[in-house]
Amino acid sequence: MAAIEPRPSEDTLTPLLHPSTVAIIGASDNPTRIGGRPQRYMRDAGFGGRIYPVNPHRDTVQGLTAFASIGDLPEPIDIAIIAVPAPAVVETTEACAAAHVKAAVIFSAGFAETGDDGGRHQAALAAVADTTPMRIVGPNCLGVYNSALGFFGTFTSTIEAGRPKPGRVGLVSQSGAYGSHLSLLATRRGIGIRFWVTTGNECDVDVAETIGWLARHPDISVIVAYAEGVRDRDRLFASLALARERGKPVIFQKVGRTEIGADAVRSHTASLAGSDAVYDGVFRQFGVHRARDTEEMLDVAYAATFGTFPASRRVGLMSISGGVGVQMADEAVECGLEVTPMSDAAQARLKALLPFGSPRNPVDITAQAFNDLSLVTANLDVMLEERTYDAIVAFFTFVAAAKAMVDPISETLRAAKQRHPDCLLVLSIVGPPEIVRRYEEVGCPVFEDPARAVRVVEALSRFSEAFARRTPPVGPSPPALAALPAAPIGEHEAKLILAAAGLPMVEEQLCATADEAVAAAGALGFPVALKIASPNILHKTETGGVELDLGTADDVSHAFAAVTGRARLAAPDARIDGVLVSRMVTAGVETILGVQHDPTFGPVVMFGLGGIFVETLKDVSFRVAPFEDDEAHRMMRELTGFPLLEGVRGRQRCDLDAVAAALSALSRFAAAHTGQLESAELNPVVVFEEGRGLLALDALLVPKRP
Amino acid sequence: MAAIEPRPSEDTLTPLLHPSTVAIIGASDNPTRIGGRPQRYMRDAGFGGRIYPVNPHRDTVQGLTAFASIGDLPEPIDIAIIAVPAPAVVETTEACAAAHVKAAVIFSAGFAETGDDGGRHQAALAAVADTTPMRIVGPNCLGVYNSALGFFGTFTSTIEAGRPKPGRVGLVSQSGAYGSHLSLLATRRGIGIRFWVTTGNECDVDVAETIGWLARHPDISVIVAYAEGVRDRDRLFASLALARERGKPVIFQKVGRTEIGADAVRSHTASLAGSDAVYDGVFRQFGVHRARDTEEMLDVAYAATFGTFPASRRVGLMSISGGVGVQMADEAVECGLEVTPMSDAAQARLKALLPFGSPRNPVDITAQAFNDLSLVTANLDVMLEERTYDAIVAFFTFVAAAKAMVDPISETLRAAKQRHPDCLLVLSIVGPPEIVRRYEEVGCPVFEDPARAVRVVEALSRFSEAFARRTPPVGPSPPALAALPAAPIGEHEAKLILAAAGLPMVEEQLCATADEAVAAAGALGFPVALKIASPNILHKTETGGVELDLGTADDVSHAFAAVTGRARLAAPDARIDGVLVSRMVTAGVETILGVQHDPTFGPVVMFGLGGIFVETLKDVSFRVAPFEDDEAHRMMRELTGFPLLEGVRGRQRCDLDAVAAALSALSRFAAAHTGQLESAELNPVVVFEEGRGLLALDALLVPKRP
Repeated sequence: MAAIEPRPSEDTLTPLLHPSTVAIIGASDNPTRIGGRPQRYMRDAGFGGRIYPVNPHRDTVQGLTAFASIGDLPEPIDIAIIAVPAPAVVETTEACAAAHVKAAVIFSAGFAETGDDGGRHQAALAAVADTTPMRIVGPNCLGVYNSALGFFGTFTSTIEAGRPKPGRVGLVSQSGAYGSHLSLLATRRGIGIRFWVTTGNECDVDVAETIGWLARHPDISVIVAYAEGVRDRDRLFASLALARERGKPVIFQKVGRTEIGADAVRSHTASLAGSDAVYDGVFRQFGVHRARDTEEMLDVAYAATFGTFPASRRVGLMSISGGVGVQMADEAVECGLEVTPMSDAAQARLKALLPFGSPRNPVDITAQAFNDLSLVTANLDVMLEERTYDAIVAFFTFVAAAKAMVDPISETLRAAKQRHPDCLLVLSIVGPPEIVRRYEEVGCPVFEDPARAVRVVEALSRFSEAFARRTPPVGPSPPALAALPAAPIGEHEAKLILAAAGLPMVEEQLCATADEAVAAAGALGFPVALKIASPNILHKTETGGVELDLGTADDVSHAFAAVTGRARLAAPDARIDGVLVSRMVTAGVETILGVQHDPTFGPVVMFGLGGIFVETLKDVSFRVAPFEDDEAHRMMRELTGFPLLEGVRGRQRCDLDAVAAALSALSRFAAAHTGQLESAELNPVVVFEEGRGLLALDALLVPKRP
Repeated sequence: MAAIEPRPSEDTLTPLLHPSTVAIIGASDNPTRIGGRPQRYMRDAGFGGRIYPVNPHRDTVQGLTAFASIGDLPEPIDIAIIAVPAPAVVETTEACAAAHVKAAVIFSAGFAETGDDGGRHQAALAAVADTTPMRIVGPNCLGVYNSALGFFGTFTSTIEAGRPKPGRVGLVSQSGAYGSHLSLLATRRGIGIRFWVTTGNECDVDVAETIGWLARHPDISVIVAYAEGVRDRDRLFASLALARERGKPVIFQKVGRTEIGADAVRSHTASLAGSDAVYDGVFRQFGVHRARDTEEMLDVAYAATFGTFPASRRVGLMSISGGVGVQMADEAVECGLEVTPMSDAAQARLKALLPFGSPRNPVDITAQAFNDLSLVTANLDVMLEERTYDAIVAFFTFVAAAKAMVDPISETLRAAKQRHPDCLLVLSIVGPPEIVRRYEEVGCPVFEDPARAVRVVEALSRFSEAFARRTPPVGPSPPALAALPAAPIGEHEAKLILAAAGLPMVEEQLCATADEAVAAAGALGFPVALKIASPNILHKTETGGVELDLGTADDVSHAFAAVTGRARLAAPDARIDGVLVSRMVTAGVETILGVQHDPTFGPVVMFGLGGIFVETLKDVSFRVAPFEDDEAHRMMRELTGFPLLEGVRGRQRCDLDAVAAALSALSRFAAAHTGQLESAELNPVVVFEEGRGLLALDALLVPKRP
């Protein structure tokens, strides 16, 4: 896909986050005011660049010479911070662009979030960004920072509660308040936020573009993003694909999961929240971790900064409390990890070391082990030498935080990490920050809660799987196919079109008369089904347009008369093409394949199991079209009802490859008709046992209204 | 139920937790050894009682006069702490009992957890508890404490990491290591643990009995429990029922949720982990909060100490960040709270106060509100005056932790709490502990994470619902019914027995000949179903023993011959009673009602929806028999598939009252046959639309083997 390439223009964000010269327009001498804080924060942090306060009413601002206007500054400006009242913002921004400022950050509120008037002012700002080289962050944002440079182009008071320490995490948040909350929590947990960007109303720079910039930055290895909605699909895709390609995990919190939530998003921002299930699909497709809440987001980001992504889902669990071992095993199994038992030989070795412990996995080393630390080392070695586990979680609680324990245990862990650098070692320890740091320094993420320790292993192993994929998340758009008919498309025609696209359809004949129907039934083989054929009648069953399981020529002849008669009664103006006669299909599992045109993401493909799975449980998965078979296989496996397809309780395994092939074919069809297709649905699609394929029994194509 | 009454003997736990005199057997002069720690901890904590070290090899122990044996002590002893090597434990314990010690705590390991030999030693300890008035905690435990008294009968090193502060929480844990972990985490969060009991191998005192003692203690208002399994059903039920009756929330973590987890439990302890889904049912039935993990357990316990349990699930959400408001709304809806919108009048008032905010609920007061704090007060007042919400969650993050903010905001909250004491106010604030304490002091639980703040509201509202129930969780056992036949029970006989117990069965006739079958069909009305009647053939469908939808006398006659012929072929030794002829039932939703004899809990009733819901999704709920209709209604509502019964997408609402009546009737039947019934299953039970009842089409009764 062409859009996967980063826009060269994205490098224009660099002056924004690595500035040498900063102008503050609306600079205040009062260091607690919004216009005064950036200068104070930068001074306190030892910013090495040059700061130019702009304030026509003062000679100096907080000890620096003030200038009357942006045009008066003695050298080119990388970034202008605009902290003036809303009515003056457009003019000020235009003046910055005229003065060849490279980037502007607009704190001021009162734009698209306030209604039509504000929207018009925001459009004027967008016009500046579109027509000049100057990039704009905001309006209605809390600014940006680069903690390594001491550059704090922000008025967030979170800086006072805890100045961020530089690290390898980049954070971008549409919401300034929430971005500030995250910055503070991350700082308190020792997670180093290097770059921090709040995008606010996004008249120009958005979350998607910032992710791409962070993905390219050599100092960033983990990306955290928060948004209420995304507008530019291609930019988002390009950025996420780039991050995946470079092995940089993206942890994304997108709010609006439920209907009430989505309501509030609409009333809160001008952004359009796409269907939430589609976002789930997009994030999975691009290997992004979608975080449910703040804590999960920071847990995963924190663990990811250690840079070890387990190559498999097999986890070894070690505990000084048998009960906690069980808890961790419960959590591991429920979140999708594999708690593979130790080999018999290894179990025998452990049992010899600790007769009262349990050596299977979870391995219960008992608190006893801390009276003889060589037991901890020996146990860990046995587990690691199995080479079965790509991650080990050890519950040591406060016992490992005792002063006498820290040196020997951290040494044991350091040695283990050296011998097995690809194995993720996660600890559950309760102790003061300085002790926790000691364990972190030997390469082990530390959590107080053992369940949280287990859950991050699953998240990191999912990143590993995503980084290993070789196919693009969303494939290149296939060449456009022949245009769809503009008129309503009947079932028979829809089936012909889809069959041509590679989707297997039940064998059927369109018959204009009863005699034709009888002959068709004879040719197809009894029993047959008979359906009214009309592009104008959508609800065939409800209007008596379907007769099933017709066993004789007489049955077919009667059914023809009945079905066409009822159709004329129910829809006198409908065009009736005759009836469709098809072979009855009974065995197999019913599924639904669909296409929807998503307002944000364009054509998306849906897959679900028939009946209550879709209706009651809403058990469906989505992917953006087009995609390949491997992606379709992952899509299937996300369904709660997947065991039905895989074969449970002695049922036959269904033909999963045929489903994957159908889904990818449908995705190519959808992509080739982008802009022409409102929706498509194949329902039911009956999937037979392995090797026997599938058949769609009904199909609907709804062209997009011009 | 008689067992709901607390055992009077449970007061014998009082000397264990309120001792005046403490003997330490195996007392060590080294204050870091296991036998030395209790004395040191008690001295450091200023324990006011008298401590008697027992050590035949020393004159003094840590400055106190040592005694040679328990028999030499100068006054009666409330509690003896036994810290001697395993081989000496039985003798020492017997000596304590002989010296009229009231309670003993045995630290030593090497009992049932180590295998048969250890099991025999443990049985000897149990015999002491059974035959003397002395109560025993342990063996293989970490002891007990009463933090208000400075009594630390424990060697857990968690005391050194943070001495517990007295509060209104009682904690009992089967696992010593995990109990210690919980004690430390609770202390660090400012949750005051008053009593702490680790029960270890439970040769006498167990988790269930301790819960009951805590429920009766006037200083305890919240109970936290951890167990790997429960052995004494009646004691557990009595304790949980008492806690519920007294309005004391019980938060219980029971490990072994998944199959691998349950495996590890079996290898770890001598306790038998009951089926985990049954535990879910028990906890729901008794209004206990089952915590998934440590963090959830402490979150709920912490919030519960504030003593406000919201009377409804309606929650008001207030946020200084619109995006976080949406997150909270998502979380609230997903966990089952109701995010009811503000009234139009209230919305208008809020809009007038804050034109840029969103007044619907979540209410976005914007960070702006903190420039004019009267806006926070005014918003809160408008929300509270609605009287719609029984809980309000406010996201203020670090903004409310700024020094200038604490006084006015905490004053606002205090005033609000005074006017609306029954409304739970939960805050999401990030700040240093001393600031958090200020908000806690005015009665508001504080969480960093807004999602966690929302989830505790749901947990507390569930307690409120449970406290309001007037029926006992498990009803009194009904009088025993006529004994079940000992021989295998055929379908027809099973149906007659269950019909007599009040369960509606499909109308059917047992017919020995084809002519009888035809006559029966005529009487019942065509079409009919015909099934082989034999107590020895369980899988009727698989052996060709069922013919459905028979429309004519001829069909019935042929089917009789076919069905009986196939049965003789498939099971030549089976006793064949003839065939069952019944009316065909087609409309309705298929469900399954079952009974199982649970090894821990006795007869339990299961409810599920038919087909894949039970098979693939394992979507079932359990309750201990007997129970009443209201409990059955709650049981139904736990199913993921409940919307199918409630009527979705234009489907008819099913007769839920009939399902409830059938479940409670089945529960009474199961209870009246306790000890006689292995299992029962009514499958399918077809539920018709509201007012039209239900019918079981098939039934199976398996008597318990003698």
